Amino acid sequence: MRSFIDIPDFSKDELLDLMVLAEDIAQSPEKYAESCKGKKLATLFFEPSTRTRLSFEAAMLELGGSVLGFSDPDSSSASKGESVSDTTRIVSCYADIIAMRHPLEGAPFVGSLSATVPVINAGDGGHCHPTQTLADLFTIKREKGSVDNLTVGFCGDLRYGRTVHSLISALSMFENVKVVLISPEELRLPEFIRKGVLEAHGMTYRETRSLEESLPELDVLYMTRIQRERFDDVTMYERLKDSYVLTLEKLNLAKRDTCVLHPLPRVNEISVKVDADPRACYFKQAENGKYMRKALILKLLSKESLSSTENNEMFESEKHYCANPKCISKTEQEITNYFIKDKKDNIRCAYCEVGAIEKED
Amino acid sequence: MRSFIDIPDFSKDELLDLMVLAEDIAQSPEKYAESCKGKKLATLFFEPSTRTRLSFEAAMLELGGSVLGFSDPDSSSASKGESVSDTTRIVSCYADIIAMRHPLEGAPFVGSLSATVPVINAGDGGHCHPTQTLADLFTIKREKGSVDNLTVGFCGDLRYGRTVHSLISALSMFENVKVVLISPEELRLPEFIRKGVLEAHGMTYRETRSLEESLPELDVLYMTRIQRERFDDVTMYERLKDSYVLTLEKLNLAKRDTCVLHPLPRVNEISVKVDADPRACYFKQAENGKYMRKALILKLLSKESLSSTENNEMFESEKHYCANPKCISKTEQEITNYFIKDKKDNIRCAYCEVGAIEKED
Amino acid sequence: MRSFIDIPDFSKDELLDLMVLAEDIAQSPEKYAESCKGKKLATLFFEPSTRTRLSFEAAMLELGGSVLGFSDPDSSSASKGESVSDTTRIVSCYADIIAMRHPLEGAPFVGSLSATVPVINAGDGGHCHPTQTLADLFTIKREKGSVDNLTVGFCGDLRYGRTVHSLISALSMFENVKVVLISPEELRLPEFIRKGVLEAHGMTYRETRSLEESLPELDVLYMTRIQRERFDDVTMYERLKDSYVLTLEKLNLAKRDTCVLHPLPRVNEISVKVDADPRACYFKQAENGKYMRKALILKLLSKESLSSTENNEMFESEKHYCANPKCISKTEQEITNYFIKDKKDNIRCAYCEVGAIEKED
Repeated sequence: MRSFIDIPDFSKDELLDLMVLAEDIAQSPEKYAESCKGKKLATLFFEPSTRTRLSFEAAMLELGGSVLGFSDPDSSSASKGESVSDTTRIVSCYADIIAMRHPLEGAPFVGSLSATVPVINAGDGGHCHPTQTLADLFTIKREKGSVDNLTVGFCGDLRYGRTVHSLISALSMFENVKVVLISPEELRLPEFIRKGVLEAHGMTYRETRSLEESLPELDVLYMTRIQRERFDDVTMYERLKDSYVLTLEKLNLAKRDTCVLHPLPRVNEISVKVDADPRACYFKQAENGKYMRKALILKLLSKESLSSTENNEMFESEKHYCANPKCISKTEQEITNYFIKDKKDNIRCAYCEVGAIEKED
Repeated sequence: MRSFIDIPDFSKDELLDLMVLAEDIAQSPEKYAESCKGKKLATLFFEPSTRTRLSFEAAMLELGGSVLGFSDPDSSSASKGESVSDTTRIVSCYADIIAMRHPLEGAPFVGSLSATVPVINAGDGGHCHPTQTLADLFTIKREKGSVDNLTVGFCGDLRYGRTVHSLISALSMFENVKVVLISPEELRLPEFIRKGVLEAHGMTYRETRSLEESLPELDVLYMTRIQRERFDDVTMYERLKDSYVLTLEKLNLAKRDTCVLHPLPRVNEISVKVDADPRACYFKQAENGKYMRKALILKLLSKESLSSTENNEMFESEKHYCANPKCISKTEQEITNYFIKDKKDNIRCAYCEVGAIEKED
Repeated sequence: MRSFIDIPDFSKDELLDLMVLAEDIAQSPEKYAESCKGKKLATLFFEPSTRTRLSFEAAMLELGGSVLGFSDPDSSSASKGESVSDTTRIVSCYADIIAMRHPLEGAPFVGSLSATVPVINAGDGGHCHPTQTLADLFTIKREKGSVDNLTVGFCGDLRYGRTVHSLISALSMFENVKVVLISPEELRLPEFIRKGVLEAHGMTYRETRSLEESLPELDVLYMTRIQRERFDDVTMYERLKDSYVLTLEKLNLAKRDTCVLHPLPRVNEISVKVDADPRACYFKQAENGKYMRKALILKLLSKESLSSTENNEMFESEKHYCANPKCISKTEQEITNYFIKDKKDNIRCAYCEVGAIEKED
């Protein structure tokens, strides 16, 4: 049985196949209207997220299945101290597949270890949100014809934006993608992505402070929100924020076929006047997310996925501990201390992927 | 495509047709058990309301469709600052029709402007709650045979009760309806309804302080709750409240075929002992609401409604502003300042219908 | 029409038949996949409980029916002061069967008196939680072949654990069940169960403080959680708590075919390491609960149950009042003061079953 915790759980071929399936679903939804008849999706949302939850629910309903779950931790047994592991184990009795959102990093992965049905990560704190990345990739594919040979700009909060990190990692699997990083100094893309992903894969990239300056060359512009609370110095925020707002005037500097994306919800970082421009693809992106979630559910419930054996390279160690205070390993009862080795032989927590620390004797 | 924001969105003929359809649904629910197969209703409740939400959900399920949504603003993206407009635009990707309740006046209308599917107003603050009025009209029709030629009493809080205002407006479309207004001085029907509706349509009406006195002449008695917090003077409230409670003793003053309505929930304004009396129609009214909602969903999803062009007489003006602090226009991002002219050429906010104020230069 | 408020609502034969039906459902779920087509279950949860709610919802969905409801009192009309009685009366317009959880004792019974569809008690405060007991009985039956001739140990909080009280009462209907009560002095089984159930039915039982000592003789071990807040003296709690935790070491003292149950959620009273032992049956128990709920829904919606007349021995009395401050009769509007006589002619509240007090003149 396979779960989907992060993008690397699929090979590039599998991602491409998933997009082919999603395209067929988008073209001919009626072919799939009974595909999940009698199947149930559990949406376990330990943190609210309407859009993601409704997208999963719409996906399952359109496949002819049904939905149960919760959208709020207070209405869940978690408020009685139940572990994530027990929750997914038991919900496996009630549903055929689980979509879980959780504020702690690694929680869906922990859930997948005890569940007897596939678990989909619908967002785990700052760690990852891979079905958003599926929506992003599929939208780029549909709008530009291919994910290869594109210049993709990321604008706004590149430091904390997990959707940015995840999409850059995914783009590294494709050919000849150039990246332009547009952000204030305070919100630059972190080194572990610049070096660990962009440079490690030999991708061309450059950093800039100016949205206007970079717009003319972009095939894709990925906007994100800059939050006031990210700045120590509020006057700095006030001075900067408008330069990262996409207005119709700025958009006119872009190519005629640039594709503007945004993971949503948008607050004011894209002017409402941009919505009517054919280059504004963020609402299509939301719809594309539904198609990819339908494809993902179908894939994970396929005989092939359900019968596959996972090839997991975790190892147990009592000599290390995870350095991340937001990791599920800090709160989950009697959790096994699992770690993984990355390509550079660094030891990382198997749950949240943050670097592990060796205990001193 | 048509939405349903308030009763005047339908002509009298359309209302009558809707009641004919609802009657057929009530008589032969099995004929409609697959009518919405494969269709999804989104219930976007930015404010809790079990009865209304469950009624919509039951309606859609009985039509063979399915339901998704939220019942609590805290579990929604609104808590992240998303606009109503963006929410309905995106939910249009996930559902075929939307029922929205919102604390701000005009919010469902704003939602309908960006949505690509029909939007039903399931209550917007103190503004209107038109599907309750559909339930009221249909119950009167079923119980009395017709909405014409009736004497209808309204009792309790006639000042703030939006269901009262809405039903009176709807009754003005019918023939020879006499209205009796039964309330304490503090909670009299506002002038804009007395003059703007009752007198404007030449309807016979009278005001009284006494429920007992008026009971013998009523064909329909519409009860509402008097809330303590409406009174500046609590002793006044204590002195008055019992006279507006319907007991079995008082009901015995009424005709044998009077029909007692209440929008529910009831707290103590109708004694539980009245429930068993055949004149108590408020539980039937709840059931009738379901039938009208089924008819409404069918109508809005019909080919005819989906393909119709709305004939909207809004105009944009930078010279006016809406005077209502509870209007959605006060909070919605980059909202266009739309206004309408009423029959007397007064300019009103297009969203909440409150009179607009002209800006001074 | 029949509701299911507590185990004694069914005869022993009916319980056995229910288990036969549940077994058939577990073996051949596809036979029942359309049994409730077009039927709706309303889950009215005035108090959160994910597991119980999801179990009911999964049950109804697997029977081909659909589900509506709420999982949180704040999103319900109860927050507007509506009575339980009105709520179930109205929800009867929207659903074919109701599952209700409520913090007040007797609330589902009050609901069943006004509902026009069957009501299932999904837990009412400390009073009872009979579908958990159905899950417990069915798991014992499946694991041990029969509920007769067993030695059943109850460990932990026997004083407040309503699932313990309910299962002991249910076991008293079976033949030759021996009971071992394992708890600290502070949390002994209350006298009304020891005398009123165990001794009244001539059941063999003994009390002990030691889990280890009693393990070798048990066919079934029913674990419950000991909560810190039950102890006046925290040092006492700290000293005792570990002795009532089931570890692999302790489990090795048990028979090879002992069956370990737990109503869940578990916090730390059973070590996670026990989960992999074949004697750990608590996850199966959760699944069995779903099968029994499916059987229960089918039974209550059967023609026979819907047409049966309830044989209720309640009587009205103005001379008595219920002594229980957590009883629904303390808050429900205009509730009739119903009482029942137990086998010893004691007068009890008909709603919460706590002994009534005679008013002084």
